[in-house]
Amino acid sequence: MYGRYTQDLGTFAKDEAARLRLQEGDTPQPRSPSELLEYRQGRCGPCRVCALQCQRFLISRVGEDWVFLILLGLVMALVSWAMDFAIATCLQAQKWMYGGLDTNVLLQYMAWVTYPTVLITFSAGFTQILAPQAVGSGIPEMKTILRGVVLKEYLTFKTFVAKVIGLTCALGSGMPLGKEGPFVHIASMCATLLSRFLSLFGGFYENEARNIEMLAAACAVGVGCCFAAPIGGVLFSIEVTSTFFAVRNYWRGFFAATFSAFIFRVLAVWNKDEETITALFKTRFRLDFPFDLQELPAFAVIGIASGFGGALFVYFNRKIVKFMRRQKAINRFLMKKRLLFPALVTLIISTLTFPPGFGQFMAGQLTQKDTLVTLFDNQTWAKQGINDEFEYLGILEAWLHPRSNVFVTLVVFILMKFWMSALATTIPVPCGAFMPVFVIGAAFGRLVGESMAAWFPDGIQTDSNTYRIVPGGYAVVGAAALSGAVTHTVSTAVIVFELTGQMSHILPVMIAVILANAVAQSLQPSLYDSIIRIKKLPYLPELGWGHHEKYNVRVEDIMVRDIRYVTLNCKYRDLQQVLNSTKMKNLPLVESAESMILLGSIERAQVGALLSTQLSPQRRLLMLRQNVLPEDGHQLSDSSIRFQVSTETSSGTPARTSLRKPLKPALKRPPSSPADSPAAGGTDQTGIALRNLFCANATPEPSEVRACVVRCKEDGRALVGRLYPLPCPMAPPQIREWEEVQLDQLVDFSSAKIDPAPFQLVEHTSLHKTHTIFSLLGLDHAFVTSIGRLVGMVTLKELRKAIEGSLTGKGVKVRPPLASFRDSTASSSEADTTALRRFWERHQHHHMPREAGPGGDEDDNTPK
Amino acid sequence: MYGRYTQDLGTFAKDEAARLRLQEGDTPQPRSPSELLEYRQGRCGPCRVCALQCQRFLISRVGEDWVFLILLGLVMALVSWAMDFAIATCLQAQKWMYGGLDTNVLLQYMAWVTYPTVLITFSAGFTQILAPQAVGSGIPEMKTILRGVVLKEYLTFKTFVAKVIGLTCALGSGMPLGKEGPFVHIASMCATLLSRFLSLFGGFYENEARNIEMLAAACAVGVGCCFAAPIGGVLFSIEVTSTFFAVRNYWRGFFAATFSAFIFRVLAVWNKDEETITALFKTRFRLDFPFDLQELPAFAVIGIASGFGGALFVYFNRKIVKFMRRQKAINRFLMKKRLLFPALVTLIISTLTFPPGFGQFMAGQLTQKDTLVTLFDNQTWAKQGINDEFEYLGILEAWLHPRSNVFVTLVVFILMKFWMSALATTIPVPCGAFMPVFVIGAAFGRLVGESMAAWFPDGIQTDSNTYRIVPGGYAVVGAAALSGAVTHTVSTAVIVFELTGQMSHILPVMIAVILANAVAQSLQPSLYDSIIRIKKLPYLPELGWGHHEKYNVRVEDIMVRDIRYVTLNCKYRDLQQVLNSTKMKNLPLVESAESMILLGSIERAQVGALLSTQLSPQRRLLMLRQNVLPEDGHQLSDSSIRFQVSTETSSGTPARTSLRKPLKPALKRPPSSPADSPAAGGTDQTGIALRNLFCANATPEPSEVRACVVRCKEDGRALVGRLYPLPCPMAPPQIREWEEVQLDQLVDFSSAKIDPAPFQLVEHTSLHKTHTIFSLLGLDHAFVTSIGRLVGMVTLKELRKAIEGSLTGKGVKVRPPLASFRDSTASSSEADTTALRRFWERHQHHHMPREAGPGGDEDDNTPK
Repeated sequence: MYGRYTQDLGTFAKDEAARLRLQEGDTPQPRSPSELLEYRQGRCGPCRVCALQCQRFLISRVGEDWVFLILLGLVMALVSWAMDFAIATCLQAQKWMYGGLDTNVLLQYMAWVTYPTVLITFSAGFTQILAPQAVGSGIPEMKTILRGVVLKEYLTFKTFVAKVIGLTCALGSGMPLGKEGPFVHIASMCATLLSRFLSLFGGFYENEARNIEMLAAACAVGVGCCFAAPIGGVLFSIEVTSTFFAVRNYWRGFFAATFSAFIFRVLAVWNKDEETITALFKTRFRLDFPFDLQELPAFAVIGIASGFGGALFVYFNRKIVKFMRRQKAINRFLMKKRLLFPALVTLIISTLTFPPGFGQFMAGQLTQKDTLVTLFDNQTWAKQGINDEFEYLGILEAWLHPRSNVFVTLVVFILMKFWMSALATTIPVPCGAFMPVFVIGAAFGRLVGESMAAWFPDGIQTDSNTYRIVPGGYAVVGAAALSGAVTHTVSTAVIVFELTGQMSHILPVMIAVILANAVAQSLQPSLYDSIIRIKKLPYLPELGWGHHEKYNVRVEDIMVRDIRYVTLNCKYRDLQQVLNSTKMKNLPLVESAESMILLGSIERAQVGALLSTQLSPQRRLLMLRQNVLPEDGHQLSDSSIRFQVSTETSSGTPARTSLRKPLKPALKRPPSSPADSPAAGGTDQTGIALRNLFCANATPEPSEVRACVVRCKEDGRALVGRLYPLPCPMAPPQIREWEEVQLDQLVDFSSAKIDPAPFQLVEHTSLHKTHTIFSLLGLDHAFVTSIGRLVGMVTLKELRKAIEGSLTGKGVKVRPPLASFRDSTASSSEADTTALRRFWERHQHHHMPREAGPGGDEDDNTPK
Repeated sequence: MYGRYTQDLGTFAKDEAARLRLQEGDTPQPRSPSELLEYRQGRCGPCRVCALQCQRFLISRVGEDWVFLILLGLVMALVSWAMDFAIATCLQAQKWMYGGLDTNVLLQYMAWVTYPTVLITFSAGFTQILAPQAVGSGIPEMKTILRGVVLKEYLTFKTFVAKVIGLTCALGSGMPLGKEGPFVHIASMCATLLSRFLSLFGGFYENEARNIEMLAAACAVGVGCCFAAPIGGVLFSIEVTSTFFAVRNYWRGFFAATFSAFIFRVLAVWNKDEETITALFKTRFRLDFPFDLQELPAFAVIGIASGFGGALFVYFNRKIVKFMRRQKAINRFLMKKRLLFPALVTLIISTLTFPPGFGQFMAGQLTQKDTLVTLFDNQTWAKQGINDEFEYLGILEAWLHPRSNVFVTLVVFILMKFWMSALATTIPVPCGAFMPVFVIGAAFGRLVGESMAAWFPDGIQTDSNTYRIVPGGYAVVGAAALSGAVTHTVSTAVIVFELTGQMSHILPVMIAVILANAVAQSLQPSLYDSIIRIKKLPYLPELGWGHHEKYNVRVEDIMVRDIRYVTLNCKYRDLQQVLNSTKMKNLPLVESAESMILLGSIERAQVGALLSTQLSPQRRLLMLRQNVLPEDGHQLSDSSIRFQVSTETSSGTPARTSLRKPLKPALKRPPSSPADSPAAGGTDQTGIALRNLFCANATPEPSEVRACVVRCKEDGRALVGRLYPLPCPMAPPQIREWEEVQLDQLVDFSSAKIDPAPFQLVEHTSLHKTHTIFSLLGLDHAFVTSIGRLVGMVTLKELRKAIEGSLTGKGVKVRPPLASFRDSTASSSEADTTALRRFWERHQHHHMPREAGPGGDEDDNTPK
């Protein structure tokens, strides 16, 4: 007996599909001819019509997802390439200006400093004016959005424009800023806009939740097309944005990111920048013997040091932001002159990097890209002893200073860039911190590598073959380790391989990244989580793995017990009280105040709608009319009877149930079986239907309609404060009286939308499991029940508080996620049985009095 | 009002932790001295004690997870390396035998054929005898186990031994078999055994669900240490085994797999196989210009062809298995002579690969590893024209045949290996299919590459620099594409990079893999899913992405409506009926048959225990004694009163509720607040406690005790068929009478473990959402409720049926996963409101009759 499930379920599904397709076909139909008409009016009208039809054919055959992902990849690759081109041009211009003015150092300095200051100031101003949401990395916001929180204005076209232009200017200034984070944001915006655009062609793109899946793919595309690193992009975006991940989405990400990276690199070939598709920062380390086994301790040292460095960077970055906020005097001044802070920071940083000045000790003339290329270089800079003098060629020359050696330059570079990057990323322009950190890491790795090369000039191995140490390999390891430590990701290792095109250092890189992560995770949150905390975004903190938080905290310890609820047989007055006493967005609906059996949840807005419908002037007018009509009213429609009767009897509670009964038919809508309207997305249909019914009865005569301010005040609080252009034949005292009567009626829930299966937890659910469920299902609240009875409620707020509170208390016991899902047996402890017995006793109690006193009314209206 | 949540939650947690630690400290304490004693008795006793203490210190400081993962990585690396060593020795022995007998072709043939036949037969026989579960890949089983299904005997030590030895022999035979799949299984077994071993040192390892998390990491380790590919291993294991995965687990996998791969490669260095840590199949393609943009179509062709090839392989493999099963005559014969089939297959395959015979046309003398090395070779084999004659050096010579050319050899190799691999993987020995497929893919890629090289002898580019085509690169692409197509994974791309140590071909590989996947996924299930279907493992099929299944099917269409349930006020007779009428493992507990409000679920075993306790001879004896005692019995304990009263009144239902009341205290255990027993893992504590209570009263006198076969038969069915060595003073008719009376008593649920929050769905939940929830939470059943009332039940079986049924019916509407979690508003359609109204009406109805007839008993015992 499988319910209605039969062999012809397929047939049923097909019929349904056909019906739906017809429906869908109906909706775009009215739009379609006008569209085509519009196209036909253009010059190449037929062309466009043809293209439109082609696209429709393509979508119907290939599938919307693929088309969407290809388009997304294409657009993002173009954006990335165009931005890179613009940035390169900007940097070239600065170099050209600086080079052209080499006769006068002062002029040179002016040019060197003014150029980035102007660009950054413009970027900050432009972003501020157009869309302040475009400021910063964007990954924290995306993390929050993917968690299911709606952040307004974060995915709009305005923000897109602001971010793209702002980022181009910011990076064109040569400041130590990155493009990765913003690119995740840009790709997400691109995906949103694209799906909005494509939804013009069909209904499939309109689904909100599908868009969130596409956003996950977009994040991968963002990283993928930024570094031409599809695999690393997918992994990085997963690590940075998700807690639980569907393998399905991973596929989409791979597809889109690969396509995007491909196009991005093809564009470089097409532009004759490259001969063929290669890695962005191609290395040429020897393949046969990339490193010796005995060098591994050095790699481990890089990893551990990077871990500390990464944690320090995050700490430093947060301290700067907090310092700026705390200093009220500075803050007030800066708030007034918003562009002063960016300009000031840029001025300081560019002054310090001025090549003829201090910049000569820190390779100040190199752009970020050049710096990376030189750091990953194959040669050993610090060759000493036996070999011929090292020749610094081309851009490598920047690292050489006649009066100091490479080590000093590298140390100065690392120290200066460290605070510069931490400071620069706090500037209110669109910018990321990944790339600056990556460069610092590479420099640190190079430093260790050069030291090793100086220490063992002939390589470590004592056998016949001597292989020199490759400092470039150390740079690669350092870059991966430090960026991994700052972002708390392992996938930087993959990104590094894809950036360099070589995998020979896989094990050193992996070891260093893991060590760096282990150290950094135990000291500080990731940079993105740090920003989430600073910005106070509504995100659920992670139960970090490194910390081994082990909770013995249960839901009953953190839940809100004193929650307001709606009972099935409550009055409108109760609804009003509930609305006034709580700000919860979802109210639980229980069977009765005594049984507390949870039946579902009802939205606050719905409750408000119920109330305002009940007290609406339309209803009053209607009722008034019916009062005017003969009291026996046997010619009246059912609905009019209803109100009449309700008015008469609403003051007396004992008789209410018996009196309500005959009124039911009036409320019944024409029978529509659930199967007839499965796709009913209309939210208030029932309510509207009822209202229409009333309105049809009320048929407002134009003469009677006059603007009348209806203020249904009760205890000084406005309930329905809207203006209704309606007849108002009652005097305010009468209105109040009428409303009082109305409020005493029983609530009719038939027009309200009720969620029949709100998420429920048990009191004894551990905090760990609760966190897992909230993360998995993207919940923002859950009711706590005990054998069907509502006992409390947990929202994201409580959960966050509990987790942040518990992070300090260590050593309590952990229950692994999903543990108790599988062994539901294990979860029902002794305490549950106790609860059941309690319920059982109540049950028995419940029976007892009735038998003692027959005829006693069972619903004892105990005040809440 | 946050319940008990206060600022000192941290303090509370700390206290709890301290208490738990004390508790935990208590439990191993009794064992610990004996352990130490045992160690002290050994020779190096103090050493071991010290080691033990060191380990404890390490565990307490570093964290159990890390220690566990390190140990797992270490063990698996050792296993992998030892196996590789043994396999290499085996293959060497075969080569040596074959080489030594080169005077006589017949002897050579005998040696060539006998050796693998013996090995395979031994492997098959050994596995069959020791643990038949070790047969095959193991990935399908792991997928099922990670889904939460318990497969008996799949993770035992016996299976581990059988798999390791069987696999070594199977691979040592030189058959086209792989070690990847079995390694995933071996690593999982290793993890299970290791956690069982480590649980001797502390309670933390005993958690079942934690073990499942560790299994996920173990799968990554399996792949990682097999190929020395940590990143690819993690990704591959995720793709192959999970639907949803926690980013937390991903971390563990990375850590363990990296450590394992590192040790694995270090062992090779230590054994002087390698000079340093490098990739397993290191390639030396040129870095500057790996491929031309115009070669991309060729790569795409490889991808698409591999997609078809992969699907064909899966189809072929399945057909062979099905053919063998269908042919009953063959089957019966083979079942009798279980070792004949492996021997026969081996004989055929080794005959065909005999190098002086047909093997000369398919490089038969090369081992799998040599084949791969040659296929990834840097040289172009088919150099024609301008250059000097190609010199086949070393093992490359195998591909040259004096009377044919390389193309023929490659084509023959591909065709022969294709069916050989498909056939060989059906042999009942531990073996995987990844590696054979990988080799075939590489050969196919090489073929395309050589063809391209022959077609464009000077490379494609027309510019000044001419770069030759690198056929080895094509081989890499082909290997990744075909193995990706067969396994439906993208991560083979990463594995290929890690195996070769080069990433220069990243974009061609990614493009080919994605195309291959797109083609293969639309034609056939993955090899692992195919095996799951063949073996009929309890796994939930995927809602494939490529298929765009769009469901309009809802839970109400597939659920079982006619389910058995237990009511709170039912009698033992009802329990008995329910047990006899259904085989469900979890029975829903509802408030009453009329209200049907779901209160929880109770396990079948628990219901059985309730029944058998009620009808147990102990109770009978106890009751008998009390009957002997004076009837007024005011000196008796509460519990004895209970049974007396029950016996007297159990036939009359109307009075039962009033009579039960005074009995309650007897059932109340000493008050134990839930907070006092948070870690109560004991399953049957309550039941045992009650039974102890009864037994304490019954204090069996040894003289009275005699073995008495108690068979409580009712309607010919054995209820409690166990033998109880107990006093049996009643005659069988009396016993039956007594039991009849007992069965009419109300059930006392206080001793039963009840899951107070079984997973609930609503009728209108879509199939898609149901699938997502089941996958996410690893459920195997869920109750369907409508506003608190139980209306049906869905189990994995129904879901699987529905999905497999729906796979044929296309074009129905999809609701994306997690969609309705977020917008709970959208999920409550009009139909829900209707349901609510229905409930409301029922509620009203329910009140009505009571008011009509005061004093009427509300629980009308309508028979189920």
